[in-house]
Amino acid sequence: MADISHRKVKKQIRLTDGKGNPIADSPVRIKQTNHSFLFGCGAFDFIPYVMKGEEEYRQVTDSWLEIFNYGTLPFYWGGYEPVEGKPNQDTLMKTAEYLKSKNVRVKGHPLCWHTACADWLMEYDNETILKKQLERIDRDVTAFKGVIDMWDVINEVVIMPIFDKYDNAITRICKDLGRVGLIKRVFERAHDNNPDAVLLLNDFNTSVNYEILIDGCLNAGVPISAIGIQSHQHQGYWGREKLEEVLERFSSFGLPIHFTENTLISGEIMPGHIVDLNDWQVEEWPSTPEGEERQAREIEEMYRILFEHPLVQAITTWDYRDGAWLNAPSGYIRKDNSLKPSYNMLKKLVKEEWWTDVDLTTDNDGCVTIDAFKGDYDLISGDLKGNAAFNDDSPITVQLERS
Amino acid sequence: MADISHRKVKKQIRLTDGKGNPIADSPVRIKQTNHSFLFGCGAFDFIPYVMKGEEEYRQVTDSWLEIFNYGTLPFYWGGYEPVEGKPNQDTLMKTAEYLKSKNVRVKGHPLCWHTACADWLMEYDNETILKKQLERIDRDVTAFKGVIDMWDVINEVVIMPIFDKYDNAITRICKDLGRVGLIKRVFERAHDNNPDAVLLLNDFNTSVNYEILIDGCLNAGVPISAIGIQSHQHQGYWGREKLEEVLERFSSFGLPIHFTENTLISGEIMPGHIVDLNDWQVEEWPSTPEGEERQAREIEEMYRILFEHPLVQAITTWDYRDGAWLNAPSGYIRKDNSLKPSYNMLKKLVKEEWWTDVDLTTDNDGCVTIDAFKGDYDLISGDLKGNAAFNDDSPITVQLERS
Repeated sequence: MADISHRKVKKQIRLTDGKGNPIADSPVRIKQTNHSFLFGCGAFDFIPYVMKGEEEYRQVTDSWLEIFNYGTLPFYWGGYEPVEGKPNQDTLMKTAEYLKSKNVRVKGHPLCWHTACADWLMEYDNETILKKQLERIDRDVTAFKGVIDMWDVINEVVIMPIFDKYDNAITRICKDLGRVGLIKRVFERAHDNNPDAVLLLNDFNTSVNYEILIDGCLNAGVPISAIGIQSHQHQGYWGREKLEEVLERFSSFGLPIHFTENTLISGEIMPGHIVDLNDWQVEEWPSTPEGEERQAREIEEMYRILFEHPLVQAITTWDYRDGAWLNAPSGYIRKDNSLKPSYNMLKKLVKEEWWTDVDLTTDNDGCVTIDAFKGDYDLISGDLKGNAAFNDDSPITVQLERS
Repeated sequence: MADISHRKVKKQIRLTDGKGNPIADSPVRIKQTNHSFLFGCGAFDFIPYVMKGEEEYRQVTDSWLEIFNYGTLPFYWGGYEPVEGKPNQDTLMKTAEYLKSKNVRVKGHPLCWHTACADWLMEYDNETILKKQLERIDRDVTAFKGVIDMWDVINEVVIMPIFDKYDNAITRICKDLGRVGLIKRVFERAHDNNPDAVLLLNDFNTSVNYEILIDGCLNAGVPISAIGIQSHQHQGYWGREKLEEVLERFSSFGLPIHFTENTLISGEIMPGHIVDLNDWQVEEWPSTPEGEERQAREIEEMYRILFEHPLVQAITTWDYRDGAWLNAPSGYIRKDNSLKPSYNMLKKLVKEEWWTDVDLTTDNDGCVTIDAFKGDYDLISGDLKGNAAFNDDSPITVQLERS
């Protein structure tokens, strides 16, 4: 039986009315409104909805919001600032603010990466590229502070200086500065601009290479808040054994772990000989009924394993809808926006099995004791209402007000 | 044609007599006595010679001294201090002093390693193991200062925390501290005890793992003087392509590179499926005539490539005599102490082709100009004699004295 006690609190709550008197011997509903755990998903589809209000995307975002409390928005430099000096800040800001208004935490992805980078950077010498990279971090981390306080600061550094598919500005400067040298510069800059931000290092390489890289960064004083692990499993589910082995190795640093980019597909598995997933370009990649059952089963096993691990704080599924990256059947909903078995399974986990919503009765001192999943709560007694966050076992008093 | 101009000086030398007057229009012999480049070899065989004076070993050490100016002595903790508190310091000190008296630079190998470690350490908890490891560094680096000023501080760290062939004290603490964490501690301690010492990180792993490890160490401020690369080629010569590729990757740090443990054998090649060379244990491993020709050819090509590379400062062949590590035909001399073709080839390179010994005539101001390999020189004119080190192109005056 999985031990998930670290996801819960055992809490004594004392309820008082507006005058501070105990609400004694009364019914109270304690109803979770959010998880502390970050159940995330790519939130790219919110952009067309927020900017154009298209109905097609509203169906997407509505079902998205029923499960997730955490979304990733794209800050790929090439797309974000296709012409130097003209960043897409307004679009991203409006979308991030919309998500925030829906109680969704937002992460920006990424501030530095060799892929999907701005081509115009290549006109400059390496010193200037680094300068512009750091200024880009200044500008965007500062502009979004308070709306986006979580960043994938730098992406895929293990391969960065030896990436040879095409020339790009970031591989050039990473060759010059070395991996840890560049990581140090971009993290310091992000940290300077938003000292309270959660800053991630993110990689698809889960080998000892990445372990050694993290070890070096931590000893070099890089302010890494959490280790980001990608898990695009187009070539088949890792399985429990690999997953537990990866968790064991990366938990040795004692840092929080985020599964930042998870993919499990509901169609044919990509052949194992493909090294760079981007090399697999297909016209059609159908989702199949058997594939959808398998996907739901694998996502369930994986989320249960990760939720059980005390250092894992976030899991983000990469594609919400089939047919996004690589045209893969990688989503929780199909291309026609209909819900897949994986959607229903995850919603049940997140909003039923791992969710607290109970009716209790206070004692004569206004107290109740509850065993609840960590998160935000509404407390309702008759026409009195209050709210609180439950993140530890210390007793609290909550004052309810007439709503 | 190889460019080895960085191994040479173009030097104007002005010769004066004891009173400071130019030795004009006179013959002068300029005779190299040592190389700046470190031509090294395992010097373990000096121990029985120095300690017991055995004739068998004298044959070994005499021919050794005709080529090499640099030797590695064993400080494996298990052998050096088999009983806690009773280190073999006297033996090593006498041997190191003997080598020093022969103008041989000595390196101690290693101060920290998971293999050949002291078993008695495992009785302690990890905190105590670390304390004893650091105290061992204090004791030995300080005791040998002035005799041994070059150390392989820590050996084979890429595999260290995941080494699983047997339990040992160093793998235990490396798991706790992380790779860079342990490297940092032992290097700082060695540096504190002998700030002028040349301190090496050494590994057989030449993959990107080792690059990332070095990168992390340098960014964490670890005082690495030179990068040590092992090249035990029992499974066949790397060849020019791999050698140049390794040199290119590891020269990106701009640090000196030492080839610390080189092996090329003159017998049958070890099968490629053996992962840990120590797993290949054979009764007999004969040196063959064809193997000896091949070995000489491969060593020649390898030494020429390394001597041409500006960052390489040292090459150490691991076994001087056949039948040492793994009983391999890995030496420059056979088990009966006879010289192999590789010996004659290397001696010719080191003492003829890359060696300067010329007769010149001074001009009327006592000057000669010479194109010479970097190193130490005797200058002899009639019955006057002096000496000097040639390491750069700046003109010098050398005063010769009656010998």
